[in-house]
Amino acid sequence: MNAPTDLTHFVPEVQPRPVPQALLEALQARFGAQCSTAMAVREQHGRDESSFSVPPPAAVVFAESTQDVADALSLAQQYEVPVIPFGVGSSLEGHLLAVQGGISIDLGRMNRVLAVNAEDLTVTVQPGVTRKQLNEEIKSTGLFFPIDPGADASLGGMCATRASGTNAVRYGTMRENVLALEVVTASGEVIRTGTRARKSSAGYDLTRLFVGSEGTLGVITEITLRIYPLPEAISAAVCSFPSIEAAVRTTIQVIQLGVPIARVELIDQHTVRMVNAHSKLGLREQPMLLMEFHGSPASVKEQAETVQEIAAEFGGTAFEWATTPEERTRLWTARHNAYFAAIQSRPGCRAISTDTCVPISRLADCLLDSVEEADASGIPYFLVGHVGDGNFHFGYLLNPDDPREREVAEGLNQTLVARALRLGGTCTGEHGVGLHKMGFLVDEAGAGAVEMMRTIKRALDPKNIMNPGKIFSL
Amino acid sequence: MNAPTDLTHFVPEVQPRPVPQALLEALQARFGAQCSTAMAVREQHGRDESSFSVPPPAAVVFAESTQDVADALSLAQQYEVPVIPFGVGSSLEGHLLAVQGGISIDLGRMNRVLAVNAEDLTVTVQPGVTRKQLNEEIKSTGLFFPIDPGADASLGGMCATRASGTNAVRYGTMRENVLALEVVTASGEVIRTGTRARKSSAGYDLTRLFVGSEGTLGVITEITLRIYPLPEAISAAVCSFPSIEAAVRTTIQVIQLGVPIARVELIDQHTVRMVNAHSKLGLREQPMLLMEFHGSPASVKEQAETVQEIAAEFGGTAFEWATTPEERTRLWTARHNAYFAAIQSRPGCRAISTDTCVPISRLADCLLDSVEEADASGIPYFLVGHVGDGNFHFGYLLNPDDPREREVAEGLNQTLVARALRLGGTCTGEHGVGLHKMGFLVDEAGAGAVEMMRTIKRALDPKNIMNPGKIFSL
Repeated sequence: MNAPTDLTHFVPEVQPRPVPQALLEALQARFGAQCSTAMAVREQHGRDESSFSVPPPAAVVFAESTQDVADALSLAQQYEVPVIPFGVGSSLEGHLLAVQGGISIDLGRMNRVLAVNAEDLTVTVQPGVTRKQLNEEIKSTGLFFPIDPGADASLGGMCATRASGTNAVRYGTMRENVLALEVVTASGEVIRTGTRARKSSAGYDLTRLFVGSEGTLGVITEITLRIYPLPEAISAAVCSFPSIEAAVRTTIQVIQLGVPIARVELIDQHTVRMVNAHSKLGLREQPMLLMEFHGSPASVKEQAETVQEIAAEFGGTAFEWATTPEERTRLWTARHNAYFAAIQSRPGCRAISTDTCVPISRLADCLLDSVEEADASGIPYFLVGHVGDGNFHFGYLLNPDDPREREVAEGLNQTLVARALRLGGTCTGEHGVGLHKMGFLVDEAGAGAVEMMRTIKRALDPKNIMNPGKIFSL
Repeated sequence: MNAPTDLTHFVPEVQPRPVPQALLEALQARFGAQCSTAMAVREQHGRDESSFSVPPPAAVVFAESTQDVADALSLAQQYEVPVIPFGVGSSLEGHLLAVQGGISIDLGRMNRVLAVNAEDLTVTVQPGVTRKQLNEEIKSTGLFFPIDPGADASLGGMCATRASGTNAVRYGTMRENVLALEVVTASGEVIRTGTRARKSSAGYDLTRLFVGSEGTLGVITEITLRIYPLPEAISAAVCSFPSIEAAVRTTIQVIQLGVPIARVELIDQHTVRMVNAHSKLGLREQPMLLMEFHGSPASVKEQAETVQEIAAEFGGTAFEWATTPEERTRLWTARHNAYFAAIQSRPGCRAISTDTCVPISRLADCLLDSVEEADASGIPYFLVGHVGDGNFHFGYLLNPDDPREREVAEGLNQTLVARALRLGGTCTGEHGVGLHKMGFLVDEAGAGAVEMMRTIKRALDPKNIMNPGKIFSL
């Protein structure tokens, strides 16, 4: 393989700033039982789904209102102490870790759906509402919120990381679906970044500055989202291919023909094998596309037929499609179970996930070389992809007690990211930078663009209290 | 009508900064014949489609490369002289006016399509490429760029104002369709704000910070855009309604049913009358929707049938639809000719356009009261709307020699904007703030959000050389 990997920038730099006792007392005075310094609570808020481990925050404030957030930030500002916003803790890249100490603001209690404007296809929610909760609460309106990153993440967290997932090929990401935010700035001021109008040219796009800012510019306290009519008909399909390339070429042609496919997910043959072992599905152990079509019954039928024809041209076989919810669930089992099937294939392992995204024409190139390297490494892995967007995830299945395996996996990811960047792609399609990809961000964006990000950060948060040490170092 | 209108913030404050002879000499030395100080050239670059008139810039640099732009900005920085980027001059709100003097950078010669990536549905262009030129150049690929603001604007200018137009209801605005930019910053540094990947969570969204920044943060020198497959079938339709409300309610229901309509434009009965007089179309002088459907032949037929059924429920009559290009052109004549028909209805007049955008459920409310006020004012007007997005334009037809008419029209707009903001909308759906809406922006976004914009501007352009005096005052 390649030259030895420099892993220094994968080890979080921990430099806790002092948290004065006076601040803790002020927080207790203002928040009473809404503020906890119990170790169990702090530890729960000091980690996420990344594999990093650092000392927890000094206290956790359970915010119940925008005013709570504003007051907490004013106090933190006064004492120059870091603040880390916390949703459900499902971040993957160390976003929630208190690398510079400070306090965590848990937004889980701000979990009300504030307004459903069915005629306008908009909804306004508090940041602690999770995507599943939202869909449950608006079900009776015949509308839904499509963005599905897998985890039942909080919508505030999904804004903060610019999340997406399986439906993005049709409905876009958080970037396209957040209309407006209420935000508490680093100084504790409450601002609104937009209106409920579907479009606007009124000044700088503060909404999209905060979407993807990973808690480094302020705390999101209210979110207005686009929602969509539940499709009249939904149909799912699966199809096996002789190669990853054939599956990718099928996807390219489907999209080029303008078929409005709602989901198109790739699973590689290793992962199919793991899923077969886990769920006894008896699927062909070949690369597979799982697809979903939304629309009128006639349109959905037409889409599926068009895709079936294209797939056949590229050697797709075992095309199967389903329209009832039960049949759809069965077809999607492989995708839904991939993660657990993979984890169970290596007892005691921990998965480290990659997140590159490339222009779709380069996807096969990017994948095939990376698959070869992963195979050569001897580390087991799963591979799933939001192939319509050019985004895919290797999940390297590591023995957590073997630092060499981690080093090899980080090396694989480093090679993969470098390849994705050469092919015109990004180091992170949907997980965010956090701690883990700070070095990659510089490689990708260039020193000048990262310096512009730093300039904005310094201007909007001069004391660097908002989730410091994430995205870039100052 | 209402209390007397305070029009002071509609009069641009002209405070030219000195342009040292040494800068002009340095520009001449660097750019030779690419730099002009001829009065005719300066005057052509010192105006746009707004009705404002201020002294022109001191010189015009015709940039032919990113390096040209970088060098011009470095010189401007050195002498602390304003720089105004210029595309084709089709801005509507005074964006291009040299209210603080300075130099204009004409990007019209940077008009090459740099890359067409048909498989990825992306294209990379220089900022001087116009949208019609782009569509002409990519026609043979079977792809197209849908955003159509009416004017054959430059794509750089469309980025700068976050433009949209008739297709936005289906394809989104510039906000959703710009993947990445190359930008020269105020200090003359060249940065890239993204990659060709369809989505990314890599740091702050600098792309969308520049989209809509109206030339106040830097000069856009390269643009990567999403493009789309030309639909297999396109069908157009027109339908008359007993009231504006009936047309709006039809549109709401069409969108709520998830019909993927590509265009849905409202024309009010006054405007139909003007178009009839201009083009002898013999249309019913009632509010009218003009629509377009994109998709497979079967899907397009199904969409048109669904819409026809909904329209009938709301009293829609004279539904007519067309699939060949010639028939479609005939049906769209009313929309395409609306502006000219209106202008010709009052010889010698000048149109001032409004641009509010509201949540679609409030559109009828917003429109009907404003129509009543416009009727009462005695000023003739036309009214067209991108009704699927809740965005509409009154065009007040003024006698340019009668300041009272202008005052009345500005008063109508002021009342309209206040109403739109009360209804959860924006003062500008697609034209931008420029000089004209600086007061409205504060009403809309609030002092805190505008102050955040100012903070970003000060941080990225400390000497305030980039198109100063636009969007907000410093």
